[in-house]
Amino acid sequence: MAVYTPVSAADLAGFLAGYDVGDAVSFKGIAEGVENSNFLVETTRGRYFLTLYEKRVAEADLPWFLALMSHLAGKGLPVPGPIRDRGGDILQRLNDRPACMIEFLPGVSVTEATPAQALAVGAALAGLHGAAQDFTAVRPNTLGPAAWAPLAARCDGRLGEIHADLPDIVAAGLAATANWPADLPVATIHADLFPDNVLLLDGKVTGLIDFYFACTDARAYDIGVTHAAWCFSNDGRQFYPERAAALMAGYASAAALSPAEQAALPLLAAGAALRFTLTRAYDWLNTPAGALVTRKDPMAFARRLQWYLGATPGAMHGC
Amino acid sequence: MAVYTPVSAADLAGFLAGYDVGDAVSFKGIAEGVENSNFLVETTRGRYFLTLYEKRVAEADLPWFLALMSHLAGKGLPVPGPIRDRGGDILQRLNDRPACMIEFLPGVSVTEATPAQALAVGAALAGLHGAAQDFTAVRPNTLGPAAWAPLAARCDGRLGEIHADLPDIVAAGLAATANWPADLPVATIHADLFPDNVLLLDGKVTGLIDFYFACTDARAYDIGVTHAAWCFSNDGRQFYPERAAALMAGYASAAALSPAEQAALPLLAAGAALRFTLTRAYDWLNTPAGALVTRKDPMAFARRLQWYLGATPGAMHGC
Repeated sequence: MAVYTPVSAADLAGFLAGYDVGDAVSFKGIAEGVENSNFLVETTRGRYFLTLYEKRVAEADLPWFLALMSHLAGKGLPVPGPIRDRGGDILQRLNDRPACMIEFLPGVSVTEATPAQALAVGAALAGLHGAAQDFTAVRPNTLGPAAWAPLAARCDGRLGEIHADLPDIVAAGLAATANWPADLPVATIHADLFPDNVLLLDGKVTGLIDFYFACTDARAYDIGVTHAAWCFSNDGRQFYPERAAALMAGYASAAALSPAEQAALPLLAAGAALRFTLTRAYDWLNTPAGALVTRKDPMAFARRLQWYLGATPGAMHGC
Repeated sequence: MAVYTPVSAADLAGFLAGYDVGDAVSFKGIAEGVENSNFLVETTRGRYFLTLYEKRVAEADLPWFLALMSHLAGKGLPVPGPIRDRGGDILQRLNDRPACMIEFLPGVSVTEATPAQALAVGAALAGLHGAAQDFTAVRPNTLGPAAWAPLAARCDGRLGEIHADLPDIVAAGLAATANWPADLPVATIHADLFPDNVLLLDGKVTGLIDFYFACTDARAYDIGVTHAAWCFSNDGRQFYPERAAALMAGYASAAALSPAEQAALPLLAAGAALRFTLTRAYDWLNTPAGALVTRKDPMAFARRLQWYLGATPGAMHGC
């Protein structure tokens, strides 16, 4: 949660001059997103986010991410559309970083979702998969199953420093997901739809944001990610069946899952939990002590992984 | 630049229920201020800042700061007024921190001021001193001359680790300011009016913010602080006489300085530069390596201190 690259009033004025958006009225750095520098820009014409992409987002992938956001926003989804400059361009450079100005969307992220909110999120996820069906450009999931064993190896045998049980849990996750289902329906997926990437207002989803892990992969895997992100207490110790039932009902209200997808859901969600366990573990082991970035506990997702490894397809629906 | 204390959507909703300000429409943590956690809250009725005060602001002083802000806002100055809850209270507690909701003001902070902007800031500073004349509550300046030798001592002889010249510059500053002028006109002063604490729009000052160093002290010392903050390049190597002339002309347009104040200005500004040199040096020596807080270079103000130690009263006006 930080602004990594400062932007001065003069930088901003020069940048805005390239757009037909009026002059700056207010400009605030936003403590949001651990990956990029984000600013809230209010002009005489409207409100926008200015994002400067820091090293963790591959610059070569940005045109794909921004095209996807434009596509979804153009279909009327609550996705922030990138703004074109006077020359029609979306992707810019500012202070030696790739940069983009996108729509500002209202709404507030929840931390403890009600079943009604989980239902709305499930329906929004199905809507996203549906609206992206004719988005044909492909981006492989660089954090998919093929990445997990190498990620675990890069933790250098140090998982036990985080928690004594973690090496065994990760090994069980890798073993279970080695037999990964093929031939499931593929979609363009968000792949990171955590509560802080969803804006809600009066029970409605007003924003799906932060598409910088989006990729082409099984749509049911995206349900697994969202299920893992929304249906547990923050520490992963408590599963909330009402939220899970609502999330799945919300998805089903907008799109039907095949029997093969239903059967694969526990394994897909286990894979999702493994992915976040591993990336958090890697970050945990490689974040300097004293750094002000809050380290996210890998065990919160290792516990979810354990839960999914013992779950039936019915349990995914809270049954 | 960080949010130190998280506030959830549920925390926020509970907090807002105590106010007659409507419901939250948007809620963003702001990367602004190194002292406190700040959030931009938009409701169905307006926009506000929510501040949670972290350890560096003395809780006992908060009523004084907030009363001053109310006083100045009530006089029509561009100062964010604290918002009263349904019971008429300003100061709250939220997540174990003192908290307050204040007005949101438009405007953008500049980094490189034009003379016209410096003129506006000088006039705004004089306006602040004038509007606070009937604010009779007193808060001593805890970072005034009496604090500087002890602050230097708390740097434990390590100033030379920052820069080889720093021990001598600080010694010269302490020697010069030992003979501190008494009997200058006293006012309620801002004492920290750096460019990031001023919002500007179309050449007008639309916001004077961050009053958490405000105190009762010589008004000409506040001019010294503002002069040091606005009239040099960021690194302190370059003095900008046009900005200084404009800042002083702006102040003079709204309030007249006595001959004694004019004569004392170089020494007062030297004291101001010494104060920021010392607090920055202390923070520099006590900020863990790897922390994401940007350390501010003490030498930027040590160089200003050297400049002021050689300055005439006329030089303060850019002559």
